[in-house]
Amino acid sequence: MTKAVIQNDDCCGAGTGYTGPAEELSTSEADLDALFEKVCNWGRWGDDDERGTLNHIGPDEVAHAATLVTVGRTVSMSRGFPTVPSIENPRPAQHYMVVTGEDRQAPHIAGMECTSDYIGLAFHGLACSHIDALCHTFHRGRMYNGRPASDVKSRGAVANTIMAIKDGIVGRGVLLDMPRALGVDFIEPSHLVTSGELEIAERELGVTLRKGDILAVRMGRDVRPGRGDGRMAGLHPFVAGWLHDRNVAVICGDGPNDANPAGVLSAWPYPVHDLCVAGMGIPLVDNLYLEGVAATCAELNRWAFQIVIAPLLIEGGTGSPVNPIAIF
Amino acid sequence: MTKAVIQNDDCCGAGTGYTGPAEELSTSEADLDALFEKVCNWGRWGDDDERGTLNHIGPDEVAHAATLVTVGRTVSMSRGFPTVPSIENPRPAQHYMVVTGEDRQAPHIAGMECTSDYIGLAFHGLACSHIDALCHTFHRGRMYNGRPASDVKSRGAVANTIMAIKDGIVGRGVLLDMPRALGVDFIEPSHLVTSGELEIAERELGVTLRKGDILAVRMGRDVRPGRGDGRMAGLHPFVAGWLHDRNVAVICGDGPNDANPAGVLSAWPYPVHDLCVAGMGIPLVDNLYLEGVAATCAELNRWAFQIVIAPLLIEGGTGSPVNPIAIF
Amino acid sequence: MTKAVIQNDDCCGAGTGYTGPAEELSTSEADLDALFEKVCNWGRWGDDDERGTLNHIGPDEVAHAATLVTVGRTVSMSRGFPTVPSIENPRPAQHYMVVTGEDRQAPHIAGMECTSDYIGLAFHGLACSHIDALCHTFHRGRMYNGRPASDVKSRGAVANTIMAIKDGIVGRGVLLDMPRALGVDFIEPSHLVTSGELEIAERELGVTLRKGDILAVRMGRDVRPGRGDGRMAGLHPFVAGWLHDRNVAVICGDGPNDANPAGVLSAWPYPVHDLCVAGMGIPLVDNLYLEGVAATCAELNRWAFQIVIAPLLIEGGTGSPVNPIAIF
Amino acid sequence: MTKAVIQNDDCCGAGTGYTGPAEELSTSEADLDALFEKVCNWGRWGDDDERGTLNHIGPDEVAHAATLVTVGRTVSMSRGFPTVPSIENPRPAQHYMVVTGEDRQAPHIAGMECTSDYIGLAFHGLACSHIDALCHTFHRGRMYNGRPASDVKSRGAVANTIMAIKDGIVGRGVLLDMPRALGVDFIEPSHLVTSGELEIAERELGVTLRKGDILAVRMGRDVRPGRGDGRMAGLHPFVAGWLHDRNVAVICGDGPNDANPAGVLSAWPYPVHDLCVAGMGIPLVDNLYLEGVAATCAELNRWAFQIVIAPLLIEGGTGSPVNPIAIF
Repeated sequence: MTKAVIQNDDCCGAGTGYTGPAEELSTSEADLDALFEKVCNWGRWGDDDERGTLNHIGPDEVAHAATLVTVGRTVSMSRGFPTVPSIENPRPAQHYMVVTGEDRQAPHIAGMECTSDYIGLAFHGLACSHIDALCHTFHRGRMYNGRPASDVKSRGAVANTIMAIKDGIVGRGVLLDMPRALGVDFIEPSHLVTSGELEIAERELGVTLRKGDILAVRMGRDVRPGRGDGRMAGLHPFVAGWLHDRNVAVICGDGPNDANPAGVLSAWPYPVHDLCVAGMGIPLVDNLYLEGVAATCAELNRWAFQIVIAPLLIEGGTGSPVNPIAIF
Repeated sequence: MTKAVIQNDDCCGAGTGYTGPAEELSTSEADLDALFEKVCNWGRWGDDDERGTLNHIGPDEVAHAATLVTVGRTVSMSRGFPTVPSIENPRPAQHYMVVTGEDRQAPHIAGMECTSDYIGLAFHGLACSHIDALCHTFHRGRMYNGRPASDVKSRGAVANTIMAIKDGIVGRGVLLDMPRALGVDFIEPSHLVTSGELEIAERELGVTLRKGDILAVRMGRDVRPGRGDGRMAGLHPFVAGWLHDRNVAVICGDGPNDANPAGVLSAWPYPVHDLCVAGMGIPLVDNLYLEGVAATCAELNRWAFQIVIAPLLIEGGTGSPVNPIAIF
Repeated sequence: MTKAVIQNDDCCGAGTGYTGPAEELSTSEADLDALFEKVCNWGRWGDDDERGTLNHIGPDEVAHAATLVTVGRTVSMSRGFPTVPSIENPRPAQHYMVVTGEDRQAPHIAGMECTSDYIGLAFHGLACSHIDALCHTFHRGRMYNGRPASDVKSRGAVANTIMAIKDGIVGRGVLLDMPRALGVDFIEPSHLVTSGELEIAERELGVTLRKGDILAVRMGRDVRPGRGDGRMAGLHPFVAGWLHDRNVAVICGDGPNDANPAGVLSAWPYPVHDLCVAGMGIPLVDNLYLEGVAATCAELNRWAFQIVIAPLLIEGGTGSPVNPIAIF
Repeated sequence: MTKAVIQNDDCCGAGTGYTGPAEELSTSEADLDALFEKVCNWGRWGDDDERGTLNHIGPDEVAHAATLVTVGRTVSMSRGFPTVPSIENPRPAQHYMVVTGEDRQAPHIAGMECTSDYIGLAFHGLACSHIDALCHTFHRGRMYNGRPASDVKSRGAVANTIMAIKDGIVGRGVLLDMPRALGVDFIEPSHLVTSGELEIAERELGVTLRKGDILAVRMGRDVRPGRGDGRMAGLHPFVAGWLHDRNVAVICGDGPNDANPAGVLSAWPYPVHDLCVAGMGIPLVDNLYLEGVAATCAELNRWAFQIVIAPLLIEGGTGSPVNPIAIF
């Protein structure tokens, strides 16, 4: 592999970014069509299935993951509730108090003193840590298991909703900290991480992905100079084939897993969403904050842990805000 | 103990309800003042502490809890997102689609097809599964660790917020299924469960609470004939002393943990909130759906499990909706 | 006409209700189909038209209406912001403070002291005073001027939106106070007011509807014993033909103009919405509070006034909350 | 008067801006204290009064205003519903469909076909056309008529709310189109318009303000090159004295009436809000879109018209979004 390291010195700080080899792996529509065909899991777990690759996580995987808890430490993998607007947050969340401390006397209940608040949130996009249900993304009008886009109605989706994940996702989390593995500070937004690079990370970090794993890929979004400009590194679409071979269950990232803006070196705008969510039925967990978990992994020099992802039970929902917890 | 079992035959179905002994344990203001004094943890973990009884959960407790995962099964302990108004849900949640399947073409991104939705939620009250931060409840104008109510401002609380729990609560969950232990179908709303009854449940179910445990008390809210009428069984205020002695870390219930309507047999309207949240610094987890976890416990004949509670990272927030996951 | 007056003595008070003649005017599907054909204004003002019967209000009508202002008095015709849930308000509105008085210091602006609030509202239904845009209602999949239902997308409607009314509706308001005209306290919910009864009201009150008028029909919703139970009087579907002949521009009511629950004596569930909004292109203004304006009309013994209806400029919106102002 | 005209050639276009005379009228704290004392209307209309300068609009003013309707034309003075975030809109509004056309079949009502939507809005700030209630602004902890800031609680204000204006504001609107009167395209954001300049506009446009008038001051916000950058021209604080002498009832602007950012040439950050809302009890109407009404005024060569401002009836509210209608 040829490393191409650049120096970034813009106003927001400096750091070493990774841009990948000189010869880029651009993809044609034919390449992606063939890959979609190869990785497509429609029908694999029955015509009624709504869980996709979560089928890779069975009782053994759940039980094994718990054995990874040794030092008894927990780490949030979530960003803060995104109330501040920005180019990455065009629909900032609402957080308003219903009752403040000054106003704490409950009406009609003498002596009761309490406060409460209200939250409002359009959780998809680039700002909120959230999980995509399998009804979030379509491939030419079809979502996972071949269901039509028209199943996602204004009163809520009728299939592939977040309710298919209501009992949570519990399993082995594996963090591939790409900047650490590649000897840089962050991955440049212009770069699409390849399966070759993921394998370098496996070797460098000493961890190997296996069936049912919940993969978290750290790009260094939160330490990149220029962060907050809406540009983000993503996975190369060919990674979908590799994930398929490895039987990975879930993909998590500090960004949207696809590069942003859309369409970098690819014939499709968000090919990872297309191939993984619609084709393979992998739930994506987007926009995590991975600095804390990366520091803990580095400190403990281990890159696997128990992970628990607990979505809200939103009937008809296309996903949920989540705070995944890594347990060491 | 004298059991007083009544037969309930109203329109919504029938079942055997538990009303407790004939002589009720009513409480005077002096009783409760003395108890507050006894259980008050203000200053116990330092003047800056915002975690209260979560201090009972250390690395050992986290690590031990993971050893309870044996069969590799996960169960949600949450109700559905509460969009339907009722006497128990006067502030129904909003769930609206931002983009439906028919409208799936992303603007300005040719070929991108996806859906998204919006949620709005005032999560306190009786309808939503949520956790109370320690700034949710006051005792005579003071919250946990003596902080003033005025710290909960319209722009958000400045202390004792949900952010103190951002890394989640992970530990040993213990379900005390009171109807099962007492040989009835549900606890009558007029009854306040006593520490004596909780000890019966420990004996009957074969589990003993210990330091750092996350206690879930099932009252049978969801199987009671008449459910949905706003009436709910709660814990007797004297239970606070017992929880204090046992060093319990968190209390979860299928209702609000206090009886509803407020003021049943007690000089204070919501004494459990007052004593536990404000005094002891115990986070309450209200309005869980415990039927699934109770069935699993019964099937496996074990009443302890790993539990993970992962709040959203709401800066300044008085709590969070949660979907606690029980892992067996 | 045979009057059938009943005495209502329920828990909420008592009053004399009007039920109409013994022989009711039930309607068949064929009747309504024929009527739709007769009153349909599709194409009447050009294929591009989005204003429907607002075309009846020209400069002369606006100018004339202003001459009705003689005593210089203004009266709101709106209900309060509907935050309280009920059977008539299953989607209660949100009203939360963003900044309270205690928290009034503006961040980063020394000396600035102010408060603000947030409102959230799903304005259609039975609780909120609002105007329907012409994209609110369809007749067999088509809205006014023959446009397809699919034009109302999740990102907003692309035709017949409230933006067609952005400059407001200003004209002659005429109040037909039906209980007053018929000598009762209120119209029974089971009754559909006929054109014959509207003509009685014209005669009794001494006012005659003409081209471009903004008709408000008072049923006495807010004085009926039993009010709040979701039952409401409405207009008989045949009234559509009469309104068509009179060239009325807008219909306002203290309820939804159609009877509720749907389908009283009619082959179609909400025939007035169907015939008027979809067919004729008449904007409906629902759920007004007409007690104040009725009292003023009675006091001044005149039933015409200038009226101003000013919707919010919601791009893509299906209507708007409004506070119509009657000016005498 | 010395005109100081500059040429602005930035990226967004070009135009002639007005910056006022070279010697600026900066204000000291003592000046403003003295002015506040002079214009303060606390107690003027009784200790219970919540309407402030709306008391200047009596029946005669309402009736006279209607005589200004001659050509029968209506013009909206509102901006669009502000869903798009920007530096001027950090809390973009929510607009979501509840039911789209594709999903139009009403549940449980066979044959009913309709759509609906949801709006959410924090209307204060720089983006939304809205009216300030008199509880929106404080002067050293006191609002109009001396009421304490603590009256604006988290459950809503208890005095000086928008409900004091529920019957709408109807009267004579006067547009002072400052750029037109001063022979420029727009007023520079760095400039505070003086009473001298307002009097120039009166003379140039041929209109004289009088008791009870609803004054709209056009700064040219929407035609300024660089618009959207958050900078806005405002009124000079000394204008408060002039408005007081003229007995003006309401002030409307295309911006927030005070200059933005706060504190231009003034010892107080938003002196117009302080002096007018808190001291005089003048409701401000902020962020109007005045291009349409200015064009109509110019076309008809008249600068007075009937105006109707109809707030929503928000119990406890600090203001309301409005669409003021100018009627010619």
